[in-house]
Amino acid sequence: MSTIMGVYLPCVQNILGVILFVRLTWIVGLAGIMESFFIVLLCCVTTLLTSISMSAIATNGVVPAGGSYFMISRALGPEFGGAVGILFYLGTTFASSMYILGAVEILLNYIAPIMTLFGPFTGPENRAALLNNFRVYGTCFLVLMSTLVFVGVKYVNKFASLFLACVVISILSIYAGVIESAFGPKTTELCFIGNRLLKLSGDMRCEKFYNTTCGWFNMILSFYIACKVSRLVLPSVMVIILKTIHQNVLDNSFAHYLRVGAPITTDRLKDNPAADVQPPELGTGYRTWLVADVSSSFTILLAIFFPSVTGIMAGSNRSGDLADAQRSIPKGTIGAVLTTAFIYLSSVVFFGTVVDGALLRDKFGDSIGNELIVSIIAWPSKWVVLIGAFLSTVGAGLQSLTGAPRLLQAIAKDNIIPFLKVFGRGKLNGDPTWALLLTCFISLIGIIIADLDVVAPIITMFFLMCYMFVNLACALQTLLNTPNWRPRFKFYHWTLSFVGMVMCITLMFISSWYYALVALVIAAGIYKYIEYCGAEKEWGDGLRGLQLTTARYALLRLESRPPHTKNWRPQLLVLLKVDENLQPKHPQMLSFAQQLKAGKGLTIVSSVLQGNYLDSYPEAQAAEQELKKAMEANKVKGFQQVLVSQDVSQGLSSIIQTSGLGGLRHNTVMFGWPHGWRQNPDPKNYKVFLDAIRASSACHNAILVPKNISNFPSRNDKLEQGTIDVWWVVHDGGLLMLLPFLLRQNKVWKNCKTRIFTVAQLEDNSIQMKKDLAVFLYHLRIDAEIEVIEMQDSDISAKVHVKVGNVVQRSRSVRFYSPNKTASETDQYTTESPRVAPTDGEDTDSLVSSSSPEHHVDTNGKEVRSQAAAFHVKTFQIVYCVGFNPHFCSQSTNVRRMHTAVKLNEVIVNKSHAAQLVILNLPGPPKGSNESREANYMEFLEVLTEGLDRVLMVRGGGREVITIYS
Amino acid sequence: MSTIMGVYLPCVQNILGVILFVRLTWIVGLAGIMESFFIVLLCCVTTLLTSISMSAIATNGVVPAGGSYFMISRALGPEFGGAVGILFYLGTTFASSMYILGAVEILLNYIAPIMTLFGPFTGPENRAALLNNFRVYGTCFLVLMSTLVFVGVKYVNKFASLFLACVVISILSIYAGVIESAFGPKTTELCFIGNRLLKLSGDMRCEKFYNTTCGWFNMILSFYIACKVSRLVLPSVMVIILKTIHQNVLDNSFAHYLRVGAPITTDRLKDNPAADVQPPELGTGYRTWLVADVSSSFTILLAIFFPSVTGIMAGSNRSGDLADAQRSIPKGTIGAVLTTAFIYLSSVVFFGTVVDGALLRDKFGDSIGNELIVSIIAWPSKWVVLIGAFLSTVGAGLQSLTGAPRLLQAIAKDNIIPFLKVFGRGKLNGDPTWALLLTCFISLIGIIIADLDVVAPIITMFFLMCYMFVNLACALQTLLNTPNWRPRFKFYHWTLSFVGMVMCITLMFISSWYYALVALVIAAGIYKYIEYCGAEKEWGDGLRGLQLTTARYALLRLESRPPHTKNWRPQLLVLLKVDENLQPKHPQMLSFAQQLKAGKGLTIVSSVLQGNYLDSYPEAQAAEQELKKAMEANKVKGFQQVLVSQDVSQGLSSIIQTSGLGGLRHNTVMFGWPHGWRQNPDPKNYKVFLDAIRASSACHNAILVPKNISNFPSRNDKLEQGTIDVWWVVHDGGLLMLLPFLLRQNKVWKNCKTRIFTVAQLEDNSIQMKKDLAVFLYHLRIDAEIEVIEMQDSDISAKVHVKVGNVVQRSRSVRFYSPNKTASETDQYTTESPRVAPTDGEDTDSLVSSSSPEHHVDTNGKEVRSQAAAFHVKTFQIVYCVGFNPHFCSQSTNVRRMHTAVKLNEVIVNKSHAAQLVILNLPGPPKGSNESREANYMEFLEVLTEGLDRVLMVRGGGREVITIYS
Repeated sequence: MSTIMGVYLPCVQNILGVILFVRLTWIVGLAGIMESFFIVLLCCVTTLLTSISMSAIATNGVVPAGGSYFMISRALGPEFGGAVGILFYLGTTFASSMYILGAVEILLNYIAPIMTLFGPFTGPENRAALLNNFRVYGTCFLVLMSTLVFVGVKYVNKFASLFLACVVISILSIYAGVIESAFGPKTTELCFIGNRLLKLSGDMRCEKFYNTTCGWFNMILSFYIACKVSRLVLPSVMVIILKTIHQNVLDNSFAHYLRVGAPITTDRLKDNPAADVQPPELGTGYRTWLVADVSSSFTILLAIFFPSVTGIMAGSNRSGDLADAQRSIPKGTIGAVLTTAFIYLSSVVFFGTVVDGALLRDKFGDSIGNELIVSIIAWPSKWVVLIGAFLSTVGAGLQSLTGAPRLLQAIAKDNIIPFLKVFGRGKLNGDPTWALLLTCFISLIGIIIADLDVVAPIITMFFLMCYMFVNLACALQTLLNTPNWRPRFKFYHWTLSFVGMVMCITLMFISSWYYALVALVIAAGIYKYIEYCGAEKEWGDGLRGLQLTTARYALLRLESRPPHTKNWRPQLLVLLKVDENLQPKHPQMLSFAQQLKAGKGLTIVSSVLQGNYLDSYPEAQAAEQELKKAMEANKVKGFQQVLVSQDVSQGLSSIIQTSGLGGLRHNTVMFGWPHGWRQNPDPKNYKVFLDAIRASSACHNAILVPKNISNFPSRNDKLEQGTIDVWWVVHDGGLLMLLPFLLRQNKVWKNCKTRIFTVAQLEDNSIQMKKDLAVFLYHLRIDAEIEVIEMQDSDISAKVHVKVGNVVQRSRSVRFYSPNKTASETDQYTTESPRVAPTDGEDTDSLVSSSSPEHHVDTNGKEVRSQAAAFHVKTFQIVYCVGFNPHFCSQSTNVRRMHTAVKLNEVIVNKSHAAQLVILNLPGPPKGSNESREANYMEFLEVLTEGLDRVLMVRGGGREVITIYS
Repeated sequence: MSTIMGVYLPCVQNILGVILFVRLTWIVGLAGIMESFFIVLLCCVTTLLTSISMSAIATNGVVPAGGSYFMISRALGPEFGGAVGILFYLGTTFASSMYILGAVEILLNYIAPIMTLFGPFTGPENRAALLNNFRVYGTCFLVLMSTLVFVGVKYVNKFASLFLACVVISILSIYAGVIESAFGPKTTELCFIGNRLLKLSGDMRCEKFYNTTCGWFNMILSFYIACKVSRLVLPSVMVIILKTIHQNVLDNSFAHYLRVGAPITTDRLKDNPAADVQPPELGTGYRTWLVADVSSSFTILLAIFFPSVTGIMAGSNRSGDLADAQRSIPKGTIGAVLTTAFIYLSSVVFFGTVVDGALLRDKFGDSIGNELIVSIIAWPSKWVVLIGAFLSTVGAGLQSLTGAPRLLQAIAKDNIIPFLKVFGRGKLNGDPTWALLLTCFISLIGIIIADLDVVAPIITMFFLMCYMFVNLACALQTLLNTPNWRPRFKFYHWTLSFVGMVMCITLMFISSWYYALVALVIAAGIYKYIEYCGAEKEWGDGLRGLQLTTARYALLRLESRPPHTKNWRPQLLVLLKVDENLQPKHPQMLSFAQQLKAGKGLTIVSSVLQGNYLDSYPEAQAAEQELKKAMEANKVKGFQQVLVSQDVSQGLSSIIQTSGLGGLRHNTVMFGWPHGWRQNPDPKNYKVFLDAIRASSACHNAILVPKNISNFPSRNDKLEQGTIDVWWVVHDGGLLMLLPFLLRQNKVWKNCKTRIFTVAQLEDNSIQMKKDLAVFLYHLRIDAEIEVIEMQDSDISAKVHVKVGNVVQRSRSVRFYSPNKTASETDQYTTESPRVAPTDGEDTDSLVSSSSPEHHVDTNGKEVRSQAAAFHVKTFQIVYCVGFNPHFCSQSTNVRRMHTAVKLNEVIVNKSHAAQLVILNLPGPPKGSNESREANYMEFLEVLTEGLDRVLMVRGGGREVITIYS
């Protein structure tokens, strides 16, 4: 099919509709030429912009079948597509009600008033009768028409050209009438009392009679003369001439909005002294004057007019049948919009020019014996317009009743809205039976409403909503710059679509904000329902690009600022081992990670497979799926990664180095304890563990090592009592303090109490220490019970003592916070790291420097020693912490260290044997790869944690993670 | 300082203010008891909720100094903090204007009317005189007070308790008066004509006199009696009794809003027949009746009242001086809010009960000879209230003038708003001089406005805005669950803060939406300015957590759906070599990446350093910074990663496997050609290149290899003409077609034309081929010139021919798209990959299977062979593509292949020597690590691209990236 037959004419036929015949004159009468011109212009510009957007969408690739719904749903994805489809369906269905009501109105009011039931039906006092007439006849029409659609849809399609002919002939007849009236004015007479228009009835006594139409040819002529003359005389003469010769234009230029019940008046007689005369009582020869049956305003009339510019999708709906859809749709649609816009705009001017204002405002033509106003203009006969309008309206109704069920069927067949499934079924030839039934039912609602002026705004809402989404789809795709967005139609621009979208929203809300809200709620409801049903259509949609852009933008924004102690939160990288079935060996790690995060922040779960990546792609994919499943089972929201590497240590190092993206980078690495390392003959066995610790430390990441992970509570457990015991040996950025707080956010650990144990030596003032620590914790806003454990340090050699002496001295010399400094300065303030001695600085640095002491001022401005500084350089800690490094690594220190471990373990087991969780510092691993030292280190940890049920070993990432400052 | 002295009393003093004395009676008169009760309640609830949020913020860590501004800026970050700070400053400054105007009003109107200038100043006709009085005296007050602040700020602080005493005594005096009035009603008389209140003047003749106050003790008594009685009699009796005994309550219960100029009337005389009598002319003994000087409504009165509930931050401002700020601030502030709420609410009831309605509505007490209405209630003397109100108002003004400059100084010292820098300076003792000057200047603006009823709403806006942010900060931090959010004050909840925030916004917009918009614009302006100035304060802010959550959420959402051909866009992973200075060797790679992306989508730039990560952390960091710099220089928006690995190939493989996060994963890898590989004696040299190709292929990533990258145009070049030539040898997912389209989106390549060359053999119908290809490209919506090059295949052996025959046969048997299928089915539809022969399937698979043929239907529904399927299995391509694999790898095929390369190169150079860019397929590398085959492969590529200026070799990622479907 060609552009003209396939797109242009169907569009024109769909756009031109019942409103033109039965309401446009009334709108012009009420809103005046200028405002109604503006109304029509607004509506036409909106549809023009929408058709530009639609052309772009329609020419962006082959649409196999289905037209506009398919286009939108494929562009915006199933959720929006479904919502728009349903709105479009509802709009089309209510449009069928509107056509039927219009047809009934033409039939009963103008063609055959004899057919009315329920007595007289014009005038506001008989409104109920009028509406009941509409209801009864409307239902009859609906039943007849849907039966016709059901049994013979092919006839409907064949009659399409007949209906189009009716429209064209009617419009031509009106134009002809307008031209005729230019020469010979018609003298249909109106009857006024004062300036009020009267209903025409048999034996009336009127005071004034006026011509309804006038010879506008005179006006053109005088305008021409004026133009000629104005070269000689002043232009004002022209105005005077125009003024005198054409009263209609002047009367009709401005708005005459009426409230319901207000009398319809004329401007011509406004100086008539009798204008305000009270009406004589009834029975004195005439009934009464005519009054407005509905209130009107700019926005009300806009909402009533809008349905007559819809129908721009008629062409694109036939995309399948077009020879060259990508060329025909833009040309045909935009051509049709421009043509119809011209027809509407010229009609506004003509009606305003030709017909008397009061008559225009008389909706049902009561003042001239129930004539359709447009029909009295028509040439050669009013019957041309009457029959034409009636047939075309019936035709439009039939087409709506044909199209709407097919649309519903298409949506139902897409299967994105499960409960619509039944409407996908049809007769043997595919015609939708159930969908037709539903359509009839919804259409019946419109008919029961019965008032065209109420139904029209409903249609307006649905279509505006739909057009808004078309514009949105176009604007979004242009802005997102998807490579697939390459429309053949080049004359679109995102600003046009954006303006179109804004106009749609504006028109929706100004025409009636409550309908608009209802439409929005319906759309949002459908959207959410489809999202809830989880439609995973393989269409691809423009919004995926939006999500991508959003995610990318959010990430890029994030990176621009370095994080701050106050904002520190654990961003976990969980390293999991997988077994031979590619399933995580210890899924409890995931559930513990979830408990630690309270559902917030980043979690990346990674696993390294040994092998050659070129061969192991499927295996890696499978492992990733298993990880994903395990994460879902444990309600861990996050990301998973599987790396195939020849060397597991290398792989872990890579993952620790490069996991995350931009600002979403992990700062804490969690991995399991290598149980059974002693039994395993392969020393590599714990090497991976040590390498992971080393790599994490090098990356300045914090480390969490849960031991006996299989004893940890699962996601659904709820520990009813017990304690989380923190053994605070080294101040290591404060993570030890933060962990119990974080855990207790989760319901599993909610009822656990926190206890903090710290180790003092005999020479320490442990009571003062406890008090200081209590103040510190108070300022940290952490509730915990504090216990100071006294331990002898007789096992620490004199040499170490000297060194330790240095440390303490140095740490005392650090500058304190002075109250004049602002908080920001304090936060940036870092003291020199205390060093044990220059000779072994290299080794201790990496262990102790990670704990930068923190200082604070109490609320009275008095300076107090930071508890952190006070605690972190005790001799005991030195042994605990730096004992694994070469300078301390004589055989004797080794024995001493083991002794320390045993002693500390005794104390811990004694105090915390009943604790739900024991958290303690993880000392740094030995440098270099001295096997015996590595084995010693592992042994030390084993001894330290022996006999404890659940242990979490923690090592800070070299920065403070908790602060007393707000 | 304790809770009472440090927080509670300062708060009470700051909250109770001038509005209570000079406007509350008037508000009660106009809004009625019920509505004014509601106004006061609304305001008090808002401040209560805000003080709860503020308590939470204030107890979340130590605030070293500075109070509320510091709290908010540290919680919300510099941008919001600065905006809120400035709003708070403006609010406080305008509050000083309000206090000064209030003090002047009390002085001139009630204490010493004799001091007035400019003639009589009451009544609307003398409004100009009134305002000028305010302006002159206000300016004097301002000058005096600011001088006092400048020279002796310590006196101001000392007088604070005096001012507090004044307030307390005044309020006690009012309460005493109310109690007194319960027993002996005062008989100040009012003068009415009709029901209209008259101004009191010397020789007036009035018609009615009424008592102003009444014995409400009677009412209580009757109520008590009624309660007693109601057990016996009907409750309605009670109502009747109440009605008869207390007219005031009834009159004052409901609103009597007045328009400007409307006469002040009483309800008592509303049935007076003389009510509508015209006023006698002037000069007949009385002046005229009293009229309202401003319009009033619920919202207007709300805006005027609100400033009298501000001041809740007075306590937290002193956080530095409190013994235990974290305990005192919540208790004291909330206590003060509750106390003042009780005072206001009880005052509303008392005023409404005790004073006659008409008198309440008489703002300046004109009807009783210019008495302050609250003062006539007072006991023992009106002077207690008058002097008390005056002194406390002056005191409040002094405190505002002291506080505001200090706040400004604090903001200026934070140095987040550069142009405020000057206001950070001060006298030697730190007192702000310039800030005081600015404050005076702004305060003067308020005084020039002169109308308390206009200034108050301005203050309302600033404070509401500020309170909104306090609530927002609390709600956000609670919802984001930052670990640092651990307020000591536990009785907050995000819903309370949220409700508070909504109430603030609502009050802002209902009280006056234009002021609200102005305030919002000011806030947004400051926000943007601070953002623009790039304040990088090391505070850490709650919004960083929001960004993180957003990014995480966006990423998590992204992952839930697999991507689709339609949404395919290149997500680049650029692998860069760095030189010994850690700078990228070929930054042109970045600029080419930028041209390819048109600024959208993901770009990850990675580099691998050889070494041990444990030692190379600083190096890796430095390299990352260099990459970042290079990316910024080339306007590449994206992320950078540096991996340190022992083995570069392994490292590249890791990066290719694990780069990106969740849905933001690369799908295309770009790396440079190893120039000079022939000269380099180390065979490893090109091994890294081959391994990168292999790893990318294994990951199903597309590969882009630009050759002669240093010749590529830079970011600022603009190619004015020329072509992008695509040599389409193998259909490999369509990336070759997409690339020119993407490049031409960028201004560098915008003017280049695309040409597509394809190779046909002699037996092909090259004319038909060209036509088919043209249709295919038309459906792809890609504009390109097409050229089919005919080449002899005489060099291809018979053996290969047979195999190729198989391929063609198989590819013909693939099922075609049938029109009944929906688009989604088509997209999922994959045919069996054509295989050459079962024996060498393994090898060809990885090369050919990546090109799944695509089929399409033309618009008439006729089935056509997909061009892709038709082109991709030509014999020539077989040689090109699978030639490097074992089964083809005899010495003779090697020679033949080289011959092919030479021939093809001849053709390409011949056709494309002038092209700006030549794009061609990159054949798959040989499997296994046979060195000679690898060298042959490299040689083949060198020969193929010899003599070409800029070459881009492309290999698809095993999936279609371009589709004809919409």
